[in-house]
Amino acid sequence: MDSISSEGWIDVTVDIRHGMLHWPGDHDVQITQSVTIEEGGVANVTYVQLSAHTGTHVDAPLHFIDKGKDITTISLNRLMGKVKVIEIKGIYEITLDEIKDQITSSDERVIFKTKNSKSDWFNKDFSENFVYLATDAAEFLKEKGVLTIGIDYLSIAGMANGIEVHRILLAEEIFIIEGLDLRFIEAGAYDMICLPLKIKGSDGSPARVLLKKI
Amino acid sequence: MDSISSEGWIDVTVDIRHGMLHWPGDHDVQITQSVTIEEGGVANVTYVQLSAHTGTHVDAPLHFIDKGKDITTISLNRLMGKVKVIEIKGIYEITLDEIKDQITSSDERVIFKTKNSKSDWFNKDFSENFVYLATDAAEFLKEKGVLTIGIDYLSIAGMANGIEVHRILLAEEIFIIEGLDLRFIEAGAYDMICLPLKIKGSDGSPARVLLKKI
Repeated sequence: MDSISSEGWIDVTVDIRHGMLHWPGDHDVQITQSVTIEEGGVANVTYVQLSAHTGTHVDAPLHFIDKGKDITTISLNRLMGKVKVIEIKGIYEITLDEIKDQITSSDERVIFKTKNSKSDWFNKDFSENFVYLATDAAEFLKEKGVLTIGIDYLSIAGMANGIEVHRILLAEEIFIIEGLDLRFIEAGAYDMICLPLKIKGSDGSPARVLLKKI
Repeated sequence: MDSISSEGWIDVTVDIRHGMLHWPGDHDVQITQSVTIEEGGVANVTYVQLSAHTGTHVDAPLHFIDKGKDITTISLNRLMGKVKVIEIKGIYEITLDEIKDQITSSDERVIFKTKNSKSDWFNKDFSENFVYLATDAAEFLKEKGVLTIGIDYLSIAGMANGIEVHRILLAEEIFIIEGLDLRFIEAGAYDMICLPLKIKGSDGSPARVLLKKI
């Protein structure tokens, strides 16, 4: 392989902003200043307070599996490699019917681009009306041996099937990337680099995610 | 370039831990649980509270330059590409004499491996006795046109020259990677991927950093 360079990589990470939307019940996102030059400090020093599930982030098994693996245990192979971006035309549910002919056993990483990407949802208030993965589609992806699944809203699962879909995937140690900004990504084959922070004991972490068209 | 894969990449990021060392005066690092399955919640949800300068992290110009650029403005080219790892034998100061014959104008990214890496400093208490960059060495690196500089402790600069060294580098928009775990890295040429979070308005961010021997 040639040396790595930034050429061709597209950043699909949303900005983390003070007061931005978050999952209902989570702590507010607070980006504040502990010290400022303007007020006589020698430096500006930012203080960050947020849920591990803020913005573009990765869920580890521990999120829904008691005593499951934390975010520091994720192998780099789950996060770096080829990914198939599938565009979902339907509204609300990504059904088994819609994806069953699009996944092969060589698809280790899959990202769903949905109608969530029609707008900059990350600059708006939280909405329950996002497109999510149906339970039978989650079972199917597990059976196919997918390692990592991504989607363009704050949850892979809907408001009604959140527990079961997360458990199906995370019990199998399938890592989930949520909160992607896919406005400028079309369906196809990409390389992916997804790097969450290594937060010991955490059930997830915000991440930086890059895609590059193959 | 072939497709990206995780093969050969070495993670030089320290774990972010509850109560870990931090720069004197910064907020304590708190990794706590908002909700737990053990206590009857449907999920585990981790709450993260930390300074932007925790563990392995990147300084943006805004850290020492009033109205400077924040961490979201950093171009991927600063963070992805070839990096030269230089081993420093001396204690305390990385002087101009020690590095002047080791930097060429083609060295866009430089990381210093110092005696800080003799131990797992990130599991210990903060110590003022770390190896840091001398002011004349910082001026020299700026003149050479280096884009990004890394080091294996929480600051590129010492307790006495912190303001001047940070200002020399950050005024030139040279990004600084601090808090690297270089215990298992030897001197030489590497590829680097360094991805901080995109925290709007922040003067820095924790990052995940990978190196791969060329």
